[in-house]
Amino acid sequence: MNQDQLTRLLNQVADGTLSVENACNDLKHLSFEDIGHAHVDHHRSLRKGFGEVIFGQGKTAAQIIEIMQKMTAHEDVVLVTRISEDKAGHVLDHMPFSTYHEDARVLIYEKTPPAIKGAGEILVISAGTSDIPVAKESLLTAQVMGNRVHGIFDVGVAGIHRLFSHMERIRNASVIIVVAGMEGALPSVVAGMVRAPVIAVPTSIGYGASFGGISALLGMLNACSSNIAVVNIDNGFGAGYMAATINQVGT
Amino acid sequence: MNQDQLTRLLNQVADGTLSVENACNDLKHLSFEDIGHAHVDHHRSLRKGFGEVIFGQGKTAAQIIEIMQKMTAHEDVVLVTRISEDKAGHVLDHMPFSTYHEDARVLIYEKTPPAIKGAGEILVISAGTSDIPVAKESLLTAQVMGNRVHGIFDVGVAGIHRLFSHMERIRNASVIIVVAGMEGALPSVVAGMVRAPVIAVPTSIGYGASFGGISALLGMLNACSSNIAVVNIDNGFGAGYMAATINQVGT
Amino acid sequence: MNQDQLTRLLNQVADGTLSVENACNDLKHLSFEDIGHAHVDHHRSLRKGFGEVIFGQGKTAAQIIEIMQKMTAHEDVVLVTRISEDKAGHVLDHMPFSTYHEDARVLIYEKTPPAIKGAGEILVISAGTSDIPVAKESLLTAQVMGNRVHGIFDVGVAGIHRLFSHMERIRNASVIIVVAGMEGALPSVVAGMVRAPVIAVPTSIGYGASFGGISALLGMLNACSSNIAVVNIDNGFGAGYMAATINQVGT
Amino acid sequence: MNQDQLTRLLNQVADGTLSVENACNDLKHLSFEDIGHAHVDHHRSLRKGFGEVIFGQGKTAAQIIEIMQKMTAHEDVVLVTRISEDKAGHVLDHMPFSTYHEDARVLIYEKTPPAIKGAGEILVISAGTSDIPVAKESLLTAQVMGNRVHGIFDVGVAGIHRLFSHMERIRNASVIIVVAGMEGALPSVVAGMVRAPVIAVPTSIGYGASFGGISALLGMLNACSSNIAVVNIDNGFGAGYMAATINQVGT
Amino acid sequence: MNQDQLTRLLNQVADGTLSVENACNDLKHLSFEDIGHAHVDHHRSLRKGFGEVIFGQGKTAAQIIEIMQKMTAHEDVVLVTRISEDKAGHVLDHMPFSTYHEDARVLIYEKTPPAIKGAGEILVISAGTSDIPVAKESLLTAQVMGNRVHGIFDVGVAGIHRLFSHMERIRNASVIIVVAGMEGALPSVVAGMVRAPVIAVPTSIGYGASFGGISALLGMLNACSSNIAVVNIDNGFGAGYMAATINQVGT
Amino acid sequence: MNQDQLTRLLNQVADGTLSVENACNDLKHLSFEDIGHAHVDHHRSLRKGFGEVIFGQGKTAAQIIEIMQKMTAHEDVVLVTRISEDKAGHVLDHMPFSTYHEDARVLIYEKTPPAIKGAGEILVISAGTSDIPVAKESLLTAQVMGNRVHGIFDVGVAGIHRLFSHMERIRNASVIIVVAGMEGALPSVVAGMVRAPVIAVPTSIGYGASFGGISALLGMLNACSSNIAVVNIDNGFGAGYMAATINQVGT
Amino acid sequence: MNQDQLTRLLNQVADGTLSVENACNDLKHLSFEDIGHAHVDHHRSLRKGFGEVIFGQGKTAAQIIEIMQKMTAHEDVVLVTRISEDKAGHVLDHMPFSTYHEDARVLIYEKTPPAIKGAGEILVISAGTSDIPVAKESLLTAQVMGNRVHGIFDVGVAGIHRLFSHMERIRNASVIIVVAGMEGALPSVVAGMVRAPVIAVPTSIGYGASFGGISALLGMLNACSSNIAVVNIDNGFGAGYMAATINQVGT
Amino acid sequence: MNQDQLTRLLNQVADGTLSVENACNDLKHLSFEDIGHAHVDHHRSLRKGFGEVIFGQGKTAAQIIEIMQKMTAHEDVVLVTRISEDKAGHVLDHMPFSTYHEDARVLIYEKTPPAIKGAGEILVISAGTSDIPVAKESLLTAQVMGNRVHGIFDVGVAGIHRLFSHMERIRNASVIIVVAGMEGALPSVVAGMVRAPVIAVPTSIGYGASFGGISALLGMLNACSSNIAVVNIDNGFGAGYMAATINQVGT
Repeated sequence: MNQDQLTRLLNQVADGTLSVENACNDLKHLSFEDIGHAHVDHHRSLRKGFGEVIFGQGKTAAQIIEIMQKMTAHEDVVLVTRISEDKAGHVLDHMPFSTYHEDARVLIYEKTPPAIKGAGEILVISAGTSDIPVAKESLLTAQVMGNRVHGIFDVGVAGIHRLFSHMERIRNASVIIVVAGMEGALPSVVAGMVRAPVIAVPTSIGYGASFGGISALLGMLNACSSNIAVVNIDNGFGAGYMAATINQVGT
Repeated sequence: MNQDQLTRLLNQVADGTLSVENACNDLKHLSFEDIGHAHVDHHRSLRKGFGEVIFGQGKTAAQIIEIMQKMTAHEDVVLVTRISEDKAGHVLDHMPFSTYHEDARVLIYEKTPPAIKGAGEILVISAGTSDIPVAKESLLTAQVMGNRVHGIFDVGVAGIHRLFSHMERIRNASVIIVVAGMEGALPSVVAGMVRAPVIAVPTSIGYGASFGGISALLGMLNACSSNIAVVNIDNGFGAGYMAATINQVGT
Repeated sequence: MNQDQLTRLLNQVADGTLSVENACNDLKHLSFEDIGHAHVDHHRSLRKGFGEVIFGQGKTAAQIIEIMQKMTAHEDVVLVTRISEDKAGHVLDHMPFSTYHEDARVLIYEKTPPAIKGAGEILVISAGTSDIPVAKESLLTAQVMGNRVHGIFDVGVAGIHRLFSHMERIRNASVIIVVAGMEGALPSVVAGMVRAPVIAVPTSIGYGASFGGISALLGMLNACSSNIAVVNIDNGFGAGYMAATINQVGT
Repeated sequence: MNQDQLTRLLNQVADGTLSVENACNDLKHLSFEDIGHAHVDHHRSLRKGFGEVIFGQGKTAAQIIEIMQKMTAHEDVVLVTRISEDKAGHVLDHMPFSTYHEDARVLIYEKTPPAIKGAGEILVISAGTSDIPVAKESLLTAQVMGNRVHGIFDVGVAGIHRLFSHMERIRNASVIIVVAGMEGALPSVVAGMVRAPVIAVPTSIGYGASFGGISALLGMLNACSSNIAVVNIDNGFGAGYMAATINQVGT
Repeated sequence: MNQDQLTRLLNQVADGTLSVENACNDLKHLSFEDIGHAHVDHHRSLRKGFGEVIFGQGKTAAQIIEIMQKMTAHEDVVLVTRISEDKAGHVLDHMPFSTYHEDARVLIYEKTPPAIKGAGEILVISAGTSDIPVAKESLLTAQVMGNRVHGIFDVGVAGIHRLFSHMERIRNASVIIVVAGMEGALPSVVAGMVRAPVIAVPTSIGYGASFGGISALLGMLNACSSNIAVVNIDNGFGAGYMAATINQVGT
Repeated sequence: MNQDQLTRLLNQVADGTLSVENACNDLKHLSFEDIGHAHVDHHRSLRKGFGEVIFGQGKTAAQIIEIMQKMTAHEDVVLVTRISEDKAGHVLDHMPFSTYHEDARVLIYEKTPPAIKGAGEILVISAGTSDIPVAKESLLTAQVMGNRVHGIFDVGVAGIHRLFSHMERIRNASVIIVVAGMEGALPSVVAGMVRAPVIAVPTSIGYGASFGGISALLGMLNACSSNIAVVNIDNGFGAGYMAATINQVGT
Repeated sequence: MNQDQLTRLLNQVADGTLSVENACNDLKHLSFEDIGHAHVDHHRSLRKGFGEVIFGQGKTAAQIIEIMQKMTAHEDVVLVTRISEDKAGHVLDHMPFSTYHEDARVLIYEKTPPAIKGAGEILVISAGTSDIPVAKESLLTAQVMGNRVHGIFDVGVAGIHRLFSHMERIRNASVIIVVAGMEGALPSVVAGMVRAPVIAVPTSIGYGASFGGISALLGMLNACSSNIAVVNIDNGFGAGYMAATINQVGT
Repeated sequence: MNQDQLTRLLNQVADGTLSVENACNDLKHLSFEDIGHAHVDHHRSLRKGFGEVIFGQGKTAAQIIEIMQKMTAHEDVVLVTRISEDKAGHVLDHMPFSTYHEDARVLIYEKTPPAIKGAGEILVISAGTSDIPVAKESLLTAQVMGNRVHGIFDVGVAGIHRLFSHMERIRNASVIIVVAGMEGALPSVVAGMVRAPVIAVPTSIGYGASFGGISALLGMLNACSSNIAVVNIDNGFGAGYMAATINQVGT
């Protein structure tokens, strides 16, 4: 029940076309269910501008299309993450305004480009070339949520001069996402150079004692810089989402 | 080497008082040191306003006093974390303008109160009473860094109605820090209710299979809400610091 | 050795047809076997009413059919768990009275529906849509064991209002099974709202630091509510079985 | 907001003493707080009869006394767990009707003995003598919550005949709590012998590869019997509480 | 009920002084309880010669003395493991025929030396000097159980020639116990040189990534020799006991 | 350098055809190589009677055949473990006297049956039907090494009476191998009933928190019986080999 | 910017063809970018002689060929690691001077053989035949980097005499790489015999409690010899690279 | 048996005072013992120059003094590691030429300063001030083994410019030891800048998810630079020893 519906109901009570008893019945169940629905509505309007997000993995192309069709009735932008090239091909056949980003495994429906709402630029830095899919997922997520974004890839700590050549852009970023596998050392180094908040994304890139990203995850949790927080292994989407909420804090 | 020094050197080459060879030598060693020193200076000025932070654990009262005396020559606010009551007593005997916060194990030197620089209110929520020391460390850190802060303690998920009674404050917060031990479920629930970024702090509170905070840490990394990022176990200071940098993103 | 055999032996001693020495030998080896067999019989009669359970995984369709044919000579209800659609097709071709539940990977032979023996309704709640297979396995297990069951799916903590809209049903349940992956926070929240015992089932749903269900498992073991106990990861069957035994405690 | 308040509000709208706009404001914030408070009250009445529980560890004797004094104004029975002998001595000096159970580290205030509400007997079985403190915590918790209880201690699997000598009592129990450290094998064996639900409690008893109870915990989670669910390591209180809720399911 | 008691009962039935009905009652409860007791007796006689074993850790000197006094009524040898020097002093004051082995933390009551029952010599080899306490616990356990024993200490793999200087004794041993911490490599090397069964005992000696003996434990479980089996970390007693049972297999 | 070569050399010194200096050079390098070769020979003769063992996994059928052909020149019995049905088919086509045991994944070449050398019967007990492959690998290994063997399968602790019906055989066994997955409780129970040494084999059977056999492994390492030692997960071969060496200790 | 370019610029300033202001602009950005580029150049020349290294895994044959073509413009030797036979076939079709080493999964482009720069021989020792691929990767890496290399394979600790037969070569090696899976004991033994530095490489060879190489890794980290350092699991390339840098320390 | 003894024996054979048979017997038992003793001697002479090393932890002052007195009969330099200030005081009272280094917990007996044998300078870099004890243990170990050493402390990655200010010294080092706790990122960064081999030492410095050094250890094992190898957590001595052997490779 949204505000309009609530006002209409109360007007009906006020003008006598709805009895107090009936209104009471309608409203006394405005409990969790209705608050629930109201919550959803309110929530949706809060979220509006970057649409809901479909986790593509484990869903068929048909299921994804069905959900997208329901959502695009109300939303201008829909983001589908972790969707394979195969499935994306099927989806593109049925959904207009859609683009598939192969390396990020992301499909975006965008009737109109999202308005920029974030304070500054969200910078996504990745340590190695293998980390790029996760990095691009972050970048595209932040972008469809209404932020200016930029990516700097393959600037890991083993050749740290590569990182320093981008110092100015790094210093000026509003929020920085740092994506790294293996030893996960890059976020510490980047965070030590800037004042902006850094979201660290461990990736499962590596072998042996990288243990599917545990090594990078632990490295980031123990970062000796303080302006860092960490998301789950390979969670590029979450980092992009978190960065977007941060970039819109002051707005 | 700053711009002035560089210009002077080039002028010396231009007027012949410095040979190309010698200039070449000077410049080819234009190395990290000088950039380094520039970095330090710039870094300091960036950090200015909330002072440096002393990790009290493992330092003697005398060492802490010595560092504080050096810092207070330049800083109006100095934060000492993880300092025991005993040591704090000694420090308070020698440092004016200082207060000890026993439950947060934090000592703050504050010649003048920090100006408010953050966009909105940083809200610190803790699940249980045992999580309060970590929560207060977050709260005080964010406060001395120039933010309005508020704490809501003991509103864990086992009696979730307690959380809901603070819904309005939660919805209006600029950044939320959620501190929880045991199963670490609270950040998911809170983040599901708001648009603001949530910093989750696992604590070592619990026993048995809590494994000193691992259980809470994993719970938070796997949170099904997307506006969450996580810091190290018991790292209240880091969460407060990160929240402060976030709250000042749009400013 | 049952009471009749024992009396006969003692009578033989009393009337001299069995020497003390031989009787002594017989009795001193009155061993576990006989008690064992008695145990089996008694055990079977205790279990009677909901049939034995076949773990389908790792068995061929032919093996499953053979076991079912032996069992259906004595049992009205036979439950097969973790059986793939392929194998189930073969079984259905040979076994009457059988139904395959694809999403729960469960096949049920049911000559006559089981009588309701449980005290109240067993409620199965799942956090996400991916947890539904495990949840349905719980639900069907409890049902064939003679209990009224109901399922509420996709009410995870990231949108906790969805859970609250079912408050009345939750409050009235006799036993509640809560199925969740990722951070496994839902059982704590549900258990905090009710007096009934809650069986928590961690699932392997998630990625990265969910570590195949370890994160959810630890979360549930550390739940800050006290009316919770936990079963193995993805063990929907065990939770349904445990709930059924609980629901029949007072009967 | 209860039904009376809602009816009054709607009547005010109907008779014009409250504007639609103001009513709309009141109702649109008909939020979780009020439902929350209602929840608290209802919750308390549900819990009534066995009192609230104080986790003694980490609290001073003075704090415990203060909480007990507040609680005993409304409750006839108060349970304090994990309280050392020292603290308990102080509490006993100030609280009447109180008894300290040294081996269970439990203190119980009991103005009148709790009425028996559970369906049958809750049986607590422990594997070794070192597991007795945890077992007794279970036993006393279930007892103060209004259940008939009985304990059988030191009947571990290394001499399984000791267990079998109690077969009749085991078979007749309504709910069984099995407490074991080291390899945690006892719950499987017990559950294989009975139809009743079994709550398994791993303890931290052991050394080397027992890893503070992890070995026992894993053993219990992987029990090959199905009528078992597990609580946290050393969580005797939780097992007793869970058993009590189970024993009262059919009532 | 032992064989004598059983014979007496049957004789009473044979001579009519006990009715079949009464004998039946006595015997029909010759169930687990009595089998239990018979089991114990039989078990004791099987174990006879090396006495029962008291785990001293966590027991007071008074408790240990009480148990020893009960046992020494029937046993010539009693072994107490993990008993500190302090407690041992008290015990020695009250128990004759007793000796304390400080480095093994073992106290032995020995009225008459145990007869040698084992086939050959049990050899105990330790890698480092810090492993000696565990090694000596093995050695003394095997000795009091009636075996010839010999110890070779401090022959770790870092100076493998030290091991080889004892080749003949190693080759001739009946059973070999190898005790090692850190990387736990010694059992593999020893087992590769001999045909005898090797019991490997990981110790908690080490630091850092030895993880309290996990490293040594894993090394031993993965030994590339096949005549090896492993006991728990620091379980010198168990290794000695197992070796004694092995050494008496052919006897 | 064997004894013949050594004698020849010394004779050459004695008769002057080899100078002391040259002999000295030859002999001073009489180092590990020669001892090494002597070791090999000696080792082989020690091992003789049960042949060497080929780990089939990771080898092609052709490679296995080649190794077998070399070995069967000297050996009457050759054991190949972990060999798939496919590869075994190829091997059987080329090797006479060979049999493939499908469920144990073992291929045995046996020109003449091995003479019985072990003291008594080696008993292999498995908890579940899924553990049978590992159990049979143990059984066949012990058998080809010259031992009488017997298997009792599917007698897990969830229905412990099944185990007790075999009490006499269990009590009479010389060495017992117990194979179990999931919670790994069976070895404790068996070892508590007998005096013989027990080799415990954890299997990777299970799901969820069985963690590929870790749960069973830990359970066995923490067994509260003392006559137990453990081998690696799924290491049926190793257990059979170890049992064989134990069974031949007294011989 | 290299030295030539820098000299040219300064000459232009000296002869007035470049203004101080413009030179200043060019040089003031001779910051990280240019240092970066200079670093690369300098770095390359330092590395020269063994070329850059391409991690083949995750790259297509086409991508590898493209990178190789760019590199072979400047380099005489190019190393590609972790490249499958399939991909290597494609590469060999397009790249001259190239050889594929199937067992090491390494492809080497070598226009002219690398000059020997290392001090002595790098010896690569592997414990088992399954460790050979990793060992050969080490060996080939060290070889293309300009070192004399030698391999001794299949000399694990279960038959330690095999190792000793190579004592002289082992004692004379400049650097030793020891590759082992399972219990990872070989490096300790080897390092105990020599003065040279030993690089230990754990492999993922093993099963059960080898946990994909963790067991070997921990064994090596806890080695009781001091002249050992460890690289990541299966990191043959890293060990070869590290050994090469060590072998060239004194040169 | 040394060369003299061997020559004498062969002379006796040559002159007929020893029969071939007796000589053969003497020599055929020229087994590991004698090789062992020869090994020891040879080994000692190889090690000569930096003395043996005493691990002080777990030894009494008296034991340390006794060992030192035996060693100083033959050695000019003796190193004692992990010795507390208390014990060191006692040792200094009895041993001349000795110095205690409090922060490294190292005591050095040095009659004459060790001759410099290493090729270049061994540089020890530590990330934080808390890592200094481990770093100094490395430094002193390398120094007493005859190497030029230098330490740069507190140059962690959170302020990476501090590291760069020492670039020249870092580039010129022969071997570099990098000591770091927390995320352990520093070795990657340092190794990326240099050609020299880098020994990485993880420390147990940190809290929460640093897990006593596991986080740093994993970070270092996964370093994306290739000229790195790792030693055990807090093993400063081992790193210094390894670096010394490396620094003397080319000599």
